[in-house]
Amino acid sequence: MESIVGDRLQVLRYTGGSLTEIEDQAAVEFPLTIYLDNEEFATVVCTPSNLKELVIGFLASEGMIRSMEDISAFNIDHHQGFAYVELKMKQVISKEFYSKRMIGSCCGKSRQFYFYNDAKTAKTIMTRKKISAGQCLELMQQMQDSSEEFQRTGGVHNAALCTEDELLFSYSDIGRHNALDKIFGHCIMNKISLKDKVIVFSGRISSEVVLKVAKIGAGILISKSAPTTLGIDLANDLGITAIGFARKNQLNIYSHPERIIEAECVSQ
Amino acid sequence: MESIVGDRLQVLRYTGGSLTEIEDQAAVEFPLTIYLDNEEFATVVCTPSNLKELVIGFLASEGMIRSMEDISAFNIDHHQGFAYVELKMKQVISKEFYSKRMIGSCCGKSRQFYFYNDAKTAKTIMTRKKISAGQCLELMQQMQDSSEEFQRTGGVHNAALCTEDELLFSYSDIGRHNALDKIFGHCIMNKISLKDKVIVFSGRISSEVVLKVAKIGAGILISKSAPTTLGIDLANDLGITAIGFARKNQLNIYSHPERIIEAECVSQ
Repeated sequence: MESIVGDRLQVLRYTGGSLTEIEDQAAVEFPLTIYLDNEEFATVVCTPSNLKELVIGFLASEGMIRSMEDISAFNIDHHQGFAYVELKMKQVISKEFYSKRMIGSCCGKSRQFYFYNDAKTAKTIMTRKKISAGQCLELMQQMQDSSEEFQRTGGVHNAALCTEDELLFSYSDIGRHNALDKIFGHCIMNKISLKDKVIVFSGRISSEVVLKVAKIGAGILISKSAPTTLGIDLANDLGITAIGFARKNQLNIYSHPERIIEAECVSQ
Repeated sequence: MESIVGDRLQVLRYTGGSLTEIEDQAAVEFPLTIYLDNEEFATVVCTPSNLKELVIGFLASEGMIRSMEDISAFNIDHHQGFAYVELKMKQVISKEFYSKRMIGSCCGKSRQFYFYNDAKTAKTIMTRKKISAGQCLELMQQMQDSSEEFQRTGGVHNAALCTEDELLFSYSDIGRHNALDKIFGHCIMNKISLKDKVIVFSGRISSEVVLKVAKIGAGILISKSAPTTLGIDLANDLGITAIGFARKNQLNIYSHPERIIEAECVSQ
């Protein structure tokens, strides 16, 4: 398989007023086309590592599978960038169904999903597990320490699955959704329960990211980046504690602060 | 129209070991569904400002229009998030065509595009306009100074169209491709020539971004962020000078350094 950081590049660096030739590296970007029951299903642009986790997680996130038992055949052609998946129960789902935007009859009051399949597969998170703000910052630090790839190329996102005390495993990808799908895929392949888990993430808390977290089933999302308004609305609605701008000794809590131990003392 | 930064949010901020309630803002995320000749064409998740520029730029980038003269009717429903566009010449293009991955017969040797329509609409850039590395850094500084939105919410990307001496205009969006589409749309709506122009950009230099720049027709792309390997390959192939990590007094030149004045003195 191709390396996830590319071959060494010759780069001209301008610094302090003059140009010098240096060697550098960049993150590899790889198009992977997924065929489901011999039909072209999607092309995912990704970092070419852990492609099996990516495909399994992507299909689960799209509502196509729930466990490895739903799959009858699986094959990846790394050279050409194709994944071939066959399902035990053939899906008769049309492309329209999963790409069609859902227009709620009741604007802004009910749950806001873009697509029908999101409304079908995202679930409300009920965990009562708590974590301290200090532990959140510690987990973010652990993820950043473990991410060599980012340090080398500056071009990838990271996602880690954690308990409140420790980082269990992490994945990198140039696509922030892919990093989450790899986590989901790993859990499905290894039958790891998602109940009471925490996700630590380098990317923005957009609606798509919150939906992925709800589909995965984790109750706490800790991000280094900013949220969007729709991301916060969905997190409130789906029972997810969304934490943003987790950097050094500071973080912001945007939704469901009842899972953060220190928040008990703040009047809501 | 909705504000591009949302209403004030109540946020719990943890800093220096204690929690306090603060007021904050987040970037608005808005789904816009584009209908082309009464057929659902795409849903773009965007910042709800300059939606006309966004739709025009997106359609041009997808190869559906070349100028405003190609459009016979245009209407945006801001409340529901729909854009309705009718073309003078009805396109008989199938969805398969523009979403289908292109598999070149010749692996890695020829141009690498994911999709058929990219191969159709991206053009090789031939401009001989030059710029100095110092001017590149100056333009990046100008874009960042002009971007209030990013400073307020930390959640958007910026793109600016520039000559080698000055920033002409800039757009912000939570989607980095959308910021580029708004620039393209603005130019088409106002018949601004893209020849010899420079694009300054906050996001990563991925293959998709390089393709957009080639479709827009600019020869120099200056980014604050990292490139990917495929982004660099495409920039080499399409004649684009790709500059990354442009920050303070430093930048990296990844392709076509012949347009950078200081590079004349460095042996290639």
